[in-house]
Amino acid sequence: MKAVRFDAWKTRPALVDVERPVPGPGEVLLKVAGSGACHSDVALYAIFDQDIAMPQLRPSYILGHEVTGWIEETGPGVTGLEKGAAYMVYAARGCGHCAACARGEDTLCDNVATMTSLGSGLGLDGGMAEYMTVPVRNLVPLGDADPIAAAPLVDAGLTAYHAVKLALPQLSAGGRTALVIGLGGVGQLAVQILGSMTAATVYATDLKEEATALAAGRGAVIVEQGEDQAARIREATGGRGVDAVFDLVGSAETIALAQAVVAVRGRITVVGLAGGRTDWGFYTTPFEAELTGTYMGTLEELHELAALYRDGRLEVDVTPYALDDALDAYARLETGTMLGRAVIVPHGEIAPADAGAAAEEVPATV
Amino acid sequence: MKAVRFDAWKTRPALVDVERPVPGPGEVLLKVAGSGACHSDVALYAIFDQDIAMPQLRPSYILGHEVTGWIEETGPGVTGLEKGAAYMVYAARGCGHCAACARGEDTLCDNVATMTSLGSGLGLDGGMAEYMTVPVRNLVPLGDADPIAAAPLVDAGLTAYHAVKLALPQLSAGGRTALVIGLGGVGQLAVQILGSMTAATVYATDLKEEATALAAGRGAVIVEQGEDQAARIREATGGRGVDAVFDLVGSAETIALAQAVVAVRGRITVVGLAGGRTDWGFYTTPFEAELTGTYMGTLEELHELAALYRDGRLEVDVTPYALDDALDAYARLETGTMLGRAVIVPHGEIAPADAGAAAEEVPATV
Amino acid sequence: MKAVRFDAWKTRPALVDVERPVPGPGEVLLKVAGSGACHSDVALYAIFDQDIAMPQLRPSYILGHEVTGWIEETGPGVTGLEKGAAYMVYAARGCGHCAACARGEDTLCDNVATMTSLGSGLGLDGGMAEYMTVPVRNLVPLGDADPIAAAPLVDAGLTAYHAVKLALPQLSAGGRTALVIGLGGVGQLAVQILGSMTAATVYATDLKEEATALAAGRGAVIVEQGEDQAARIREATGGRGVDAVFDLVGSAETIALAQAVVAVRGRITVVGLAGGRTDWGFYTTPFEAELTGTYMGTLEELHELAALYRDGRLEVDVTPYALDDALDAYARLETGTMLGRAVIVPHGEIAPADAGAAAEEVPATV
Amino acid sequence: MKAVRFDAWKTRPALVDVERPVPGPGEVLLKVAGSGACHSDVALYAIFDQDIAMPQLRPSYILGHEVTGWIEETGPGVTGLEKGAAYMVYAARGCGHCAACARGEDTLCDNVATMTSLGSGLGLDGGMAEYMTVPVRNLVPLGDADPIAAAPLVDAGLTAYHAVKLALPQLSAGGRTALVIGLGGVGQLAVQILGSMTAATVYATDLKEEATALAAGRGAVIVEQGEDQAARIREATGGRGVDAVFDLVGSAETIALAQAVVAVRGRITVVGLAGGRTDWGFYTTPFEAELTGTYMGTLEELHELAALYRDGRLEVDVTPYALDDALDAYARLETGTMLGRAVIVPHGEIAPADAGAAAEEVPATV
Repeated sequence: MKAVRFDAWKTRPALVDVERPVPGPGEVLLKVAGSGACHSDVALYAIFDQDIAMPQLRPSYILGHEVTGWIEETGPGVTGLEKGAAYMVYAARGCGHCAACARGEDTLCDNVATMTSLGSGLGLDGGMAEYMTVPVRNLVPLGDADPIAAAPLVDAGLTAYHAVKLALPQLSAGGRTALVIGLGGVGQLAVQILGSMTAATVYATDLKEEATALAAGRGAVIVEQGEDQAARIREATGGRGVDAVFDLVGSAETIALAQAVVAVRGRITVVGLAGGRTDWGFYTTPFEAELTGTYMGTLEELHELAALYRDGRLEVDVTPYALDDALDAYARLETGTMLGRAVIVPHGEIAPADAGAAAEEVPATV
Repeated sequence: MKAVRFDAWKTRPALVDVERPVPGPGEVLLKVAGSGACHSDVALYAIFDQDIAMPQLRPSYILGHEVTGWIEETGPGVTGLEKGAAYMVYAARGCGHCAACARGEDTLCDNVATMTSLGSGLGLDGGMAEYMTVPVRNLVPLGDADPIAAAPLVDAGLTAYHAVKLALPQLSAGGRTALVIGLGGVGQLAVQILGSMTAATVYATDLKEEATALAAGRGAVIVEQGEDQAARIREATGGRGVDAVFDLVGSAETIALAQAVVAVRGRITVVGLAGGRTDWGFYTTPFEAELTGTYMGTLEELHELAALYRDGRLEVDVTPYALDDALDAYARLETGTMLGRAVIVPHGEIAPADAGAAAEEVPATV
Repeated sequence: MKAVRFDAWKTRPALVDVERPVPGPGEVLLKVAGSGACHSDVALYAIFDQDIAMPQLRPSYILGHEVTGWIEETGPGVTGLEKGAAYMVYAARGCGHCAACARGEDTLCDNVATMTSLGSGLGLDGGMAEYMTVPVRNLVPLGDADPIAAAPLVDAGLTAYHAVKLALPQLSAGGRTALVIGLGGVGQLAVQILGSMTAATVYATDLKEEATALAAGRGAVIVEQGEDQAARIREATGGRGVDAVFDLVGSAETIALAQAVVAVRGRITVVGLAGGRTDWGFYTTPFEAELTGTYMGTLEELHELAALYRDGRLEVDVTPYALDDALDAYARLETGTMLGRAVIVPHGEIAPADAGAAAEEVPATV
Repeated sequence: MKAVRFDAWKTRPALVDVERPVPGPGEVLLKVAGSGACHSDVALYAIFDQDIAMPQLRPSYILGHEVTGWIEETGPGVTGLEKGAAYMVYAARGCGHCAACARGEDTLCDNVATMTSLGSGLGLDGGMAEYMTVPVRNLVPLGDADPIAAAPLVDAGLTAYHAVKLALPQLSAGGRTALVIGLGGVGQLAVQILGSMTAATVYATDLKEEATALAAGRGAVIVEQGEDQAARIREATGGRGVDAVFDLVGSAETIALAQAVVAVRGRITVVGLAGGRTDWGFYTTPFEAELTGTYMGTLEELHELAALYRDGRLEVDVTPYALDDALDAYARLETGTMLGRAVIVPHGEIAPADAGAAAEEVPATV
């Protein structure tokens, strides 16, 4: 079968021909429906090397950690799953026997230091291929919902969902407010998840007008960029400030904005990995405001997010690419000309018009 | 001023002329905007007597525990409040110095046994009058929102909001479900609060078609009445059952329905006071389902509910009546021909057309 | 190897010779340290039959669902585990791919209806044997703590821990109170878990004086049996009632006691399976008190409970038996003359004195 | 009556003779039992001035915000309180009609900007006097517990309790760990509250050996000071780090220590006002650790803390002083030679031996 494999640090992945994998005990073989091309893949092959990358990410392996597919075959001992049924793949893979893995939070595995991978497409073979093997535990049912658009939910969507869930103590009451900074893929989903799961007024901001237009259509109140932005946000909240800020950029400037607008007892969640720093002290933020970061989410949360998607509450902005065009998709990611989230679709026809149409309707938002 | 006073058990209230009250220290005088006529008022004067009623409810006093108004005058020591500003009145009045009152939950006051009233309109003079005095602590700001439609929020709305908040552990995730049994005033608000604050699919049922039509327009999925109702609900949830059932009737039949459809780890909240009983045992409901009742809500929750209303997320079905027509409103309540919630409006003109128009648009739902 | 196998309904288990099992992929072979003999085993072989038992429990299989042991061998693909290290075995075994299993709550598996067992010793071969195979996911580390006394933690302990955790909203504040009804194995652990994890005053009651003496030594305030028991408990709480009642008996009488003493906003958790029923209505219990049942617990909670045990915060009352004497242990369970929890110890010498000494020091509490 | 009044910025308070106050409507006159002399009082009169202090703290008023006393007289409209009964006084005083005050969290009053005081002894007359008037809402019952030792609970104790309660999500499970940095009055109470309310292993550290000895006697595991302190703490937790760090100092060094030892998903609560700053970014602390500050606590929490104290779970280290010696107490506070918390006792004899004995037994821990 064809697959996009990452073979060496500082080297572009290659489209290669490999053996179709065989599902082991407790595994299924998935016929891949969609596989999201993610900026972190570019970081993997273009930026990281053996000195700065976590050793678990060392090549060679097939890329693809945002994967959906249909069951093609089941391994020994697997029962109760139907051929052709659609699933998402929870990508993270912990040790499988610590307390974090016990609650399905492989992302925070207690034994990560001794693991040899972080997950599928992240040290283990992923889903940028025609087929992929997956432990049944990592399958999350999609029912009748479109599996191609679902691919980015696995990482971008789960990241947004997890961050929102941890902020529900701040948001689950009448009159609360949220602010989403950065309206790329994660931000667009955060806006929709907040709109579905809370009664909060959702403020949102981004440099790109196409992104803010999209968020406005999804119910967000757009805050224009500009020097007095913090003051305008605070005023919009009647002076109280924002109960939960989600910073999907993570630069020094965006964290500073978050600190300037957060409310007493509020919460700032930094999700974006721009690496910004801030100066924090007892008096730098309002009383009892929390500052934290979050990282992906749990297996149970992916089940919950899938249910939200099956219930029709989430639109995902994707641009489909054939597997043969996967390297083009990465090239466009590298140059920042990608429109929406590129999802590699290994099976079936991708009409060029599809990509084109999507490109016009769904402006670049990442 | 004119007021509707309840003077003796088993006796209709009378429209009387009394002295306008004077606000004491820490109090304001409120010019009443709206005062809801509630079924519990009918219970007070038509059903209760000294043998069965709580002694705190003993007459004589002015009725009206669902009250909104504008500040007319402030008592000694009151600062920071503006004449003409609109407020709701938290009706419950506890001892003021126990732990429950400390958190603003006067409804569960530790010293209720030694109290001489339960609140304004409930042992103390209420707001079925032109003016009313209120401790500043019990005021909840309405801002620019319509104070007349807001009146039923004080009791019906707060009851729904409190019940939903206590069920958020069951509801705050993707793919959850709720069932609202009984679509009168409390039920219509419960449907809207659930829709605003959670991503749950909200099922709803009522005997009256007008009530279900209204709820459907507010996003509920209507479950027809009929013998296999429990089976149909369970099927709609994919066999899992309902995560949170709100029974606003409280008869033996509705509690039985709730037990038949609740999910593992779900919650049944009985709010309605029909006095039904059920037979409960470890195996009568799915594993770890909770059975409970709730009663009104806290002062802080009324602030939160007011914010939800100010944010435009709640429609309240009301029929305005002039104060002179208050006894007519009660008469219609008694005979069950009341359309929507009757709100007595002591000041300003109530065009007969208003009531008529409301009557056509807002079908009887109580 | 020797094993205690349950072969047919209404038939005592037999000590048989079977092949030592071989660990499959993702499994380990455990050398059994301790295996608790549980009343539910007696129900399995002496009371149940094909008409009343869940089909998942159909014989034949080796008994033993409260198991601890040392790693003897690892199956294919298992890494990071050390030979000789001691573990508990989480007994429940769900489908492995639903949302409940995703969070490690196999006990509430969404697909239980299609499963062919409930867990090890409960449809699958358990640990009443010299060796046992276990999926690595079900292992919970014991570190240096005594593995023999740990065996009852797997079921009795986890049941108590889970019930307490779900009641923490009622218990996590100064001045709260709990009541433990029934001071057998689960009750003794509930008293200790409450004492460790909360500042609540723990009331406790049982018919057997030896059991109450043991609980008193563990910090409980004993409530004598007798007609005015509910009144005495309520008085002890200053009239407020008890915030969290744990009924480990579950008879009609004990549930009625729980309802009579629970506080406003309190919680009644029925854990015991005596099958009692109660009559519940809005006015039968104080405002907002919850009535529920709980069932075992989650895999993560067993990790937490193991940590509590490793920290030296739990005493477990056990009487060791050699594997050859396992049928004697069951015989004593049947006649109610068992002292403490019988733990079968397949390896090493069990001095007769051990059992004797334990018998004298640890009075019958089950 | 005699009182200690703060009359002008940068000026020591004076012992003056003033009129005994008269309780207004809704108030009681308290005969003061104990009044804690707090470091923040010294900041008030010795460090602050009109440029740096919040305007609400402007003199002149009687000091004393940690006050207990007996009811001497009740004002108009006050019922249900008994002369001679002992109470603590919740010091914070918000606007009385915002959402924060509605839940009894006057410390976070929404209208603080327009208030003319922060509370009794903090802009309003406090309890460093023979008598004091208090709104009934601010009274918290002490029952039979010693009111003199209770005085520091009002501020130092409530601060510790509130910080611990907000960290319970991190602490309420088996195997969790806490670290208390700084073992003065707040720290000693934090150690005891953690020991009562959680099963966490409580690590503690301080420069003063007397303070660590006292904490060790209260169940804390002492961490010696020194360069590799963070590494030693992490090792003690098996590498996981600390689930909840309470920094009662708040210097740059202690916040850095907290960041170095906190666990994944842990919480750092800075309580101390040393004004330290830290550099925070996504990668500076383990995944999902929260950084926050807390400030005093709520009225309901003071009720809960009082219950903990009445239940005998808290020792408070105090040194009694006669009211005539209050200025001496402040002088010793200024020079750092104060032993334990100085509590001014306006009524009854304070044997010089008392202070002496206390001085020897209770080493300086502030």
